[in-house]
Amino acid sequence: MFKLIHKDKTTKARLGKLTTAHGEINTPVFMPVGTQGTVKSISTQELKDIGAEIILGNAYHLYLRPGLEIIEKAGGLHKFMGWDRPILTDSGGYQIFSLATLRKLSDDGAEFSSHIDGSRHFITPEKAIDIQRTLGSDIMMILDECVHYPAARDYVEQSLALTTRWALRAKKHLDKIRAARDDRQLLFGIVQGSTYLDLRKKAVEDLLKIGFDGYAIGGVSVGEPENLIHEIAAYTAALLPEDKARYTMGIGMPTDIVEAIGNGIDMFDCVVPTRNGRNGQAFTWDGDIQLRNADRKEDFRPIDETCECFACRNHTRGYIRHLFNTEELLGLRLVSLHNLHFYVKLIRLSREAIRQDRFDAFKKEFLKKYNTKEK
Amino acid sequence: MFKLIHKDKTTKARLGKLTTAHGEINTPVFMPVGTQGTVKSISTQELKDIGAEIILGNAYHLYLRPGLEIIEKAGGLHKFMGWDRPILTDSGGYQIFSLATLRKLSDDGAEFSSHIDGSRHFITPEKAIDIQRTLGSDIMMILDECVHYPAARDYVEQSLALTTRWALRAKKHLDKIRAARDDRQLLFGIVQGSTYLDLRKKAVEDLLKIGFDGYAIGGVSVGEPENLIHEIAAYTAALLPEDKARYTMGIGMPTDIVEAIGNGIDMFDCVVPTRNGRNGQAFTWDGDIQLRNADRKEDFRPIDETCECFACRNHTRGYIRHLFNTEELLGLRLVSLHNLHFYVKLIRLSREAIRQDRFDAFKKEFLKKYNTKEK
Repeated sequence: MFKLIHKDKTTKARLGKLTTAHGEINTPVFMPVGTQGTVKSISTQELKDIGAEIILGNAYHLYLRPGLEIIEKAGGLHKFMGWDRPILTDSGGYQIFSLATLRKLSDDGAEFSSHIDGSRHFITPEKAIDIQRTLGSDIMMILDECVHYPAARDYVEQSLALTTRWALRAKKHLDKIRAARDDRQLLFGIVQGSTYLDLRKKAVEDLLKIGFDGYAIGGVSVGEPENLIHEIAAYTAALLPEDKARYTMGIGMPTDIVEAIGNGIDMFDCVVPTRNGRNGQAFTWDGDIQLRNADRKEDFRPIDETCECFACRNHTRGYIRHLFNTEELLGLRLVSLHNLHFYVKLIRLSREAIRQDRFDAFKKEFLKKYNTKEK
Repeated sequence: MFKLIHKDKTTKARLGKLTTAHGEINTPVFMPVGTQGTVKSISTQELKDIGAEIILGNAYHLYLRPGLEIIEKAGGLHKFMGWDRPILTDSGGYQIFSLATLRKLSDDGAEFSSHIDGSRHFITPEKAIDIQRTLGSDIMMILDECVHYPAARDYVEQSLALTTRWALRAKKHLDKIRAARDDRQLLFGIVQGSTYLDLRKKAVEDLLKIGFDGYAIGGVSVGEPENLIHEIAAYTAALLPEDKARYTMGIGMPTDIVEAIGNGIDMFDCVVPTRNGRNGQAFTWDGDIQLRNADRKEDFRPIDETCECFACRNHTRGYIRHLFNTEELLGLRLVSLHNLHFYVKLIRLSREAIRQDRFDAFKKEFLKKYNTKEK
């Protein structure tokens, strides 16, 4: 499913292709986050226009609203939301541990109350697969426990043991399904282990024994210092097999993504481009800028002079500032679109640099320019 | 500036072309409302895609935010908002009488407090022209007093006399400007007179003596019964010269627009497609439907089976209902877009019917289908 195409000679960055039921994805790749079956304020056509090859959907949210019955009747998540390119769905684990209330964790699974209406639900590793099969995503994720930072070693050991047992159950469940019918949905394992490198190593070994179509590095960017994020991601990535895609969940800022690509990570998702965009924060090649500030009033430059996105080709910082000031929805829409374009372009330029064996220079140049903050 | 192209043989409907500084407009025409320099939640590209030939901007709102200084520095409203097709601006009169507070009306002009920050402002008929000249709109409207319904005859007589004096001052002010420089901004007069037909007649006579580039019928759809709207618009339209464009301000629902076209009206603006769209109300050829209702959950038809808009080509009622239910902005955006497309298409089909001398049949067929409400 994953084909390694080229390894950068200056870093651990790599080019690859991942084949899914809805087409090929070039890696490294950034996946815009479509939590509730829509990338917030952005149309599917705009996602295609900026070159998004795959998006992420949240099983937890979609399971609660609109519910599986409706998505099944619609013919799956792709048809429900009108998106014909690949979709990765998370298992819902992260949301159960961050959004839901009254959690009861047992060896069997996770019981929780919906953050929307308080209704009780019970998710097992098998059910997490069934939910994602109903959604029909191209890449499914196993149910895991995402441990926040800091976490005591004892707790992490126990949690990791549970995550590994769940991973095995998820894989066995899918094996049965695959034995019964032709199935093209991929399943990724998730490496946990918090900041304990030996536990990360054990997690990788256990997951590799089970065998997955790709591997995510979970439990990073959960509150730990930035250098730890990259240290753990780099350490874990180096343990993973070359012939499988590697995905760091929820990373991150543009600088984080460039670092992670250099450490051999292939796949990224993050709410930052849209969430920060809705607050008026725009990413430029000279760093991020805040468009709601009063000093943007008479700034008639585009968000980024070198950007080709719709917002930059047609609108100015001053206009977008006016839209935020008057609470016009077009404002957050334009900045979200620009930010997504920026992320996808950053990845595209990274790919070119890898192809030309100059990713280290590209990374250094990007970070230097991005961090000067002369705007 | 206005060229009458064809008169329907079955009604008073007419085809025309209005030439402005930013290009020709085919009439009848619908103008999406861009109150604050943006048609709410819709991009300029989407406006072009649905075939919008001209949009409306609100002088009152733009004067207060971002303010004339900023728009002037940006090079006018077209450049400020990134729209290169014609723009009509209202004078601000309607908003002064509906939104602003602490109004003091004198023969000289209108003093009012901003609804945003309470700041005091004073607008004269001349200043209303100057504001719209700074905005650089293609069609300017005179400052008038828009009388609400019901209004005592005495009050309407006095108000109308004021509006007429203001109209003369506005025209004289523009004449001076035009004498000094080449100016291509058109100025429309506004016929007031409430529901008193003889006062409407007098208003037309007085305005014709002054002479404008086009004539609006104001003070309709301000609370009076629906039949009165059409009675007054029809009566007034018949008094207006054939060789000038006629515009009913703020009309209205699709059925109102079709009626008004049949009565010889050429130009329309209304917030209904976007405002109602934001509340989940969608217009279809079989009448309007509410997409937020729970019974839309499993309705996987497009909003309108026969519609070619982006929303109908790509999304279902059930999906849009989900977007509203989860407060996703794409929902109100899709319905706003669909509704604007519906209005523009309704006008385009009206034009075809006029060209073929079958507008009466078109109108009857449209109204019959629209009012059956079998959805």
